[in-house]
Amino acid sequence: MTGARVPLADQDAAGWMVGRDGFDPGRMGHRETVFTIGNGNLSLRGTFEEGHPQETAGSFMHRVWDDLDVHATELANLPRWWGLDLWLDDRRVRYEDAAGGRRTLDLRTGLLRRAFDWPVAAGADLKVRHERFISLVEPYGAMLRTTVELTAGVADLRVRVGASVHVENTGRLHWRLVGQSAGEDGVTLVAVTRGTGIPIGVVVRPRLSASADLTPGDADGQPALDYRLTLRAGEPVEIIRSVGIVPAIDTAVPLNAAREVSDRLDTMGWSAALTASSEAWAQVWADCDVEIDGDPEAQLSVRYNLFQLNAAAPRFTEDASIGAKTLSGYGYRHHVFWDTESFMLPVFTFTQPDVARNMLAYRCRRLAGARAKAAAAGRSGAQFPWESAGTGAEVTPPWIEAAAGSGARMRVWSGDLEVHITADIALAVVQYWTVTGDDAFVRDQGAEVILDGARFWASLARADADGSFHLRDVVGPDEYHEHVDDNAYTNLLAAWHLRTADRVLAWLERTAPERAGRLSADLGIGPEERRRWAQVADHLAPPRIRDRVLEQFAGYFDRDDVDAARLRNPARQLSMQVLLGAEGVQRTQTVKQPDVLMLAFQLPDLFDAESLAANYHYYDPRTDHEQGSSLGPAVSSVIAARAGDPAAAYAQFLRAARADLDDVRGNASDGIHGASAGGLWQAVVLGFAGLRITDDGWTVEPRLPATWQRLRFAFRLRGVRQIVELRNDH
Amino acid sequence: MTGARVPLADQDAAGWMVGRDGFDPGRMGHRETVFTIGNGNLSLRGTFEEGHPQETAGSFMHRVWDDLDVHATELANLPRWWGLDLWLDDRRVRYEDAAGGRRTLDLRTGLLRRAFDWPVAAGADLKVRHERFISLVEPYGAMLRTTVELTAGVADLRVRVGASVHVENTGRLHWRLVGQSAGEDGVTLVAVTRGTGIPIGVVVRPRLSASADLTPGDADGQPALDYRLTLRAGEPVEIIRSVGIVPAIDTAVPLNAAREVSDRLDTMGWSAALTASSEAWAQVWADCDVEIDGDPEAQLSVRYNLFQLNAAAPRFTEDASIGAKTLSGYGYRHHVFWDTESFMLPVFTFTQPDVARNMLAYRCRRLAGARAKAAAAGRSGAQFPWESAGTGAEVTPPWIEAAAGSGARMRVWSGDLEVHITADIALAVVQYWTVTGDDAFVRDQGAEVILDGARFWASLARADADGSFHLRDVVGPDEYHEHVDDNAYTNLLAAWHLRTADRVLAWLERTAPERAGRLSADLGIGPEERRRWAQVADHLAPPRIRDRVLEQFAGYFDRDDVDAARLRNPARQLSMQVLLGAEGVQRTQTVKQPDVLMLAFQLPDLFDAESLAANYHYYDPRTDHEQGSSLGPAVSSVIAARAGDPAAAYAQFLRAARADLDDVRGNASDGIHGASAGGLWQAVVLGFAGLRITDDGWTVEPRLPATWQRLRFAFRLRGVRQIVELRNDH
Repeated sequence: MTGARVPLADQDAAGWMVGRDGFDPGRMGHRETVFTIGNGNLSLRGTFEEGHPQETAGSFMHRVWDDLDVHATELANLPRWWGLDLWLDDRRVRYEDAAGGRRTLDLRTGLLRRAFDWPVAAGADLKVRHERFISLVEPYGAMLRTTVELTAGVADLRVRVGASVHVENTGRLHWRLVGQSAGEDGVTLVAVTRGTGIPIGVVVRPRLSASADLTPGDADGQPALDYRLTLRAGEPVEIIRSVGIVPAIDTAVPLNAAREVSDRLDTMGWSAALTASSEAWAQVWADCDVEIDGDPEAQLSVRYNLFQLNAAAPRFTEDASIGAKTLSGYGYRHHVFWDTESFMLPVFTFTQPDVARNMLAYRCRRLAGARAKAAAAGRSGAQFPWESAGTGAEVTPPWIEAAAGSGARMRVWSGDLEVHITADIALAVVQYWTVTGDDAFVRDQGAEVILDGARFWASLARADADGSFHLRDVVGPDEYHEHVDDNAYTNLLAAWHLRTADRVLAWLERTAPERAGRLSADLGIGPEERRRWAQVADHLAPPRIRDRVLEQFAGYFDRDDVDAARLRNPARQLSMQVLLGAEGVQRTQTVKQPDVLMLAFQLPDLFDAESLAANYHYYDPRTDHEQGSSLGPAVSSVIAARAGDPAAAYAQFLRAARADLDDVRGNASDGIHGASAGGLWQAVVLGFAGLRITDDGWTVEPRLPATWQRLRFAFRLRGVRQIVELRNDH
Repeated sequence: MTGARVPLADQDAAGWMVGRDGFDPGRMGHRETVFTIGNGNLSLRGTFEEGHPQETAGSFMHRVWDDLDVHATELANLPRWWGLDLWLDDRRVRYEDAAGGRRTLDLRTGLLRRAFDWPVAAGADLKVRHERFISLVEPYGAMLRTTVELTAGVADLRVRVGASVHVENTGRLHWRLVGQSAGEDGVTLVAVTRGTGIPIGVVVRPRLSASADLTPGDADGQPALDYRLTLRAGEPVEIIRSVGIVPAIDTAVPLNAAREVSDRLDTMGWSAALTASSEAWAQVWADCDVEIDGDPEAQLSVRYNLFQLNAAAPRFTEDASIGAKTLSGYGYRHHVFWDTESFMLPVFTFTQPDVARNMLAYRCRRLAGARAKAAAAGRSGAQFPWESAGTGAEVTPPWIEAAAGSGARMRVWSGDLEVHITADIALAVVQYWTVTGDDAFVRDQGAEVILDGARFWASLARADADGSFHLRDVVGPDEYHEHVDDNAYTNLLAAWHLRTADRVLAWLERTAPERAGRLSADLGIGPEERRRWAQVADHLAPPRIRDRVLEQFAGYFDRDDVDAARLRNPARQLSMQVLLGAEGVQRTQTVKQPDVLMLAFQLPDLFDAESLAANYHYYDPRTDHEQGSSLGPAVSSVIAARAGDPAAAYAQFLRAARADLDDVRGNASDGIHGASAGGLWQAVVLGFAGLRITDDGWTVEPRLPATWQRLRFAFRLRGVRQIVELRNDH
């Protein structure tokens, strides 16, 4: 095995194309998720241009939140800008009536293509090709191209291009129509969100390669242009649409702004606009690509997951972050969880620090929401919400329906008790600082998050008579166990957070005394508060340790051992929580995801090699890998690699790699598993390559899977590009 | 004062027309409710033909339920069948741009008319008149007529007629499009409910009085026909639409059935179809009209409320009843409460027993749901749900949002604890039996409800060591007080129910021994069960009585007295529950609606004159008449009349009379207050006229308001029409 730093080479298309054949009604939602494209601001699921009655169509834009009630805030599915319908001799052309057909997503450029042959008559087909991309250089712009060609004969072609306000978020409506038009230069639509009152302007500007009779349509909410022409064999017709869709957030007259975007794209034309976007994607890939030789599935899936993270990562704003299901579906209503900082953010911290800074700034700019949450619970400082959306207020639903249609409600405790997210965010700031050296960000924004978070921990911890401090009635990363005391992960992260805050404030006093003084005054941090931090950090109940194994929470070791036969039964289709019941599973040591191992993932220096191995061997067999949290496998992979269990590391890696492409959990139609996608990169870079940042640089400790001949990736350390190339020299 | 039985005379239009002038955007929702029309199966709110961005459009049909989740089942707002748009010289004609305008609802015929002059140019107007009715002889049919006329000049007229699946239930979607068409003989639409899978067919068949160019429109979900013609002054144009809208409940191919309805109406033509429907309405009015001379407001409002009850009353099916907000809005999601049996049903029991029987049959056919509810709580027999919809399962939401946008949830206890509804339904059956003498119904359906309800009470009551029985932790009619023990209303109704069940079974054994035997066997009612009924009835804790006043529940007298200054403050805009908090109000004697007085309303024989007066004078001043329950005023009016307080009786009568026409509670946009509407009739007939059914006939004890010169109404006693005419001979 060798490690070397050489420039990234070009790749052939083989490792870059995600393809799926034919129309599969049973996998429609899954494939809509898989074929999501986006530019870090605007996204579009792999929904058909012509729609489908069973579709779960979706196009989302950062910051375009709307409320139903306060816990149901979500990004509003945008007015339909991608619709195009074809009729041949008055028969409507639909994908499901075609013979075969194939969809391909080119990860290099974000170009999605769907091509199929639609039977016209004996010996004649209509060849249809739909292509689309969302421009990486136009935050509010996209283009679509449709090409149709008859293989024989002549027929009347009708093409309908339009926009529509008749869209939904899985049965809920977010838009009210304001205005619409349809004319030779395109269709326009203005709508406004019902709850938040955000107007949006849509312009769809079509261009046909042939002359056609044009009829505008003005059905309410559905402005359209109808083109009719005679199609002859061998004379293909191309319809190119340039789309601008702009909310009134950064602009006052969104329709004008949308018009400018669509005009710009129309003037450039398809090829030039696609080239400009592709060049921007090439830069993204130069920054973050991972090359794996010898394992095509690993190669494609790592790139696919990176593509989806980049499609959603807020590239153009500090007021958005990546939701649990990225920008690709309706799951968790686009809310931002710890998934973002602990699983997805490291990808950007290491490869695209500007994007990482946007994501952290999203949190920093929502300190008011975090303070309101702390204050509402009678605590000091800033407690970040378990689920965060537009305003930064807590938006975790306190109750959810236990199972669809059951009528039974289930209390969701995470918004109340899963407090560790405040330390997770502080840790993400410090990781970002360590990797980038971005002192200015920490001074101007990050420090305040860390310091006010420390105040929260100091006010949350309760002292016992013996001088020990405790965090009681919490939920740790393992959500199978609720209402636990002194969760090891939470306590040790909180102690780390308190000590770090003191160090950050000392650093600030040294390097930016004025800022330090103002922050201390604003937050009310005096010597007494800092003594309290130290006191709580030093006396926050440490976990019981048995044979080097940390007890996950007080009393965990006393719970019933797991039913290994049941847990490891390969035929099991339900989570252990469903099988044993929410209360039943709590009585056992079964964990939804590795909780103590997550601590080793977050604060690796707390564990020496023997301790890591002991904890791995204890907790891994107690984890519901298959039906527990989708956050688990990537972490398990990293820890298994470090603990010297390469077969398990690779098996867990594959589980994460397949989460969305193969829909192993059956819920990919809800959207990309963002944490799994981010964890996958970490499994490769921190697990198999064993990358570690040191005081004076970085080291790797490669443990490549046996089939991997070569692994190569790039990252940035304090502004300087680093290339890592590892080879397996068996 | 005299009482006489004479035939009903014709009325002039004055007491029959509800009119409102002009366009008032602030009252749009209220007026949509006020101008609701219906035929006991299909309804339509007073929504404009051309729509409006702020409208709360709604058209509902009995039995067309759809689910979001199980507690959110509601009647799906039907695909838009009433839409028509006008353009003059390409300018869209909208009511809000017109000068003046007036809407009138003719209560005699159910014809709604909207007429306005829309300014075209200096000296020229477009006179527009829209008319609509839902046929009382075609359960699934309606007609609409639009007449336009230029007062001067010539202009291009465009008329768009169509149907649309793009409708909503206040932000929620219930339909999926199945198919659509638009051609010379009209537009069609087929859609299916998303949760319950009920297909519906819509046919809108237009007929123009002038020739026009016709263009069909096929925007998805919005089939339309566009007519263009030249309009000249003095040459009015009329567009008549015949509509059929049929769900696949009684028919397999709903589109064919809808086509037949629209064809039938189209063939009859506007005048003949309106005449046929009006004749049916005339029969309804012959059955139920109330004439009041000397008080035009009382006259019109009593008729208006009767109209709205008749518009919603299930005339054509035994599988529907009237929801709390009739068929006129989204409030309470069309669920059926005790409001129906205790407030609305008596109107029909007395005036249209066939309709009353349908409504009771709705309950009888849902015994399975009532048994499931009892069984789920570990009880025997049949416990009717507090909120009932399509299946008869309990559909009360266990939690609701405390205030819109607050994010706080409030526990709704009525589904768990407001048990009295089971006795209310039994009482309604007995009242129906008493008035109609319909032995067959009781034998075949009603007895089972009464008997299985008795089993529920016998299993619910808990015995104390002293031999007394108790119903603890309940909510009575006064919902300000939750979790109370031995609510007087509930206990005395339950005891009545248990004794009645025994008598009903004895009657059945005597008159239909076979049916009695089978029912007893099926329900498991042996001698032991009947002894238990008697035992519980005899020992169910009676209320404490102080100075003839019954204590509302155990310990009520010990609660703080009301803050009379605050309660009676005329400037108060919030309910006492909101002012004092849900817990604060429970600590006082403030009641949402008269609870003990409701007992006197339901079981008048329990109270002698002195006792009634004592309870009235105690509880009436403790009632939140203004902001408490809308069920209260009519009951208060009846009791005040009986207790000899005519001024109070009339004031309460007016409060009920104005609930919807004047929107005194500010929530009429959610729909008609059905219980208030039914209570209003009872205030007149049982209160002011003092009608009582006796063993050998009926008596009146008139206490007419001073301004009423004459009161006249009809009812049926055991199949025989009775006319009551009372005069005030001051």
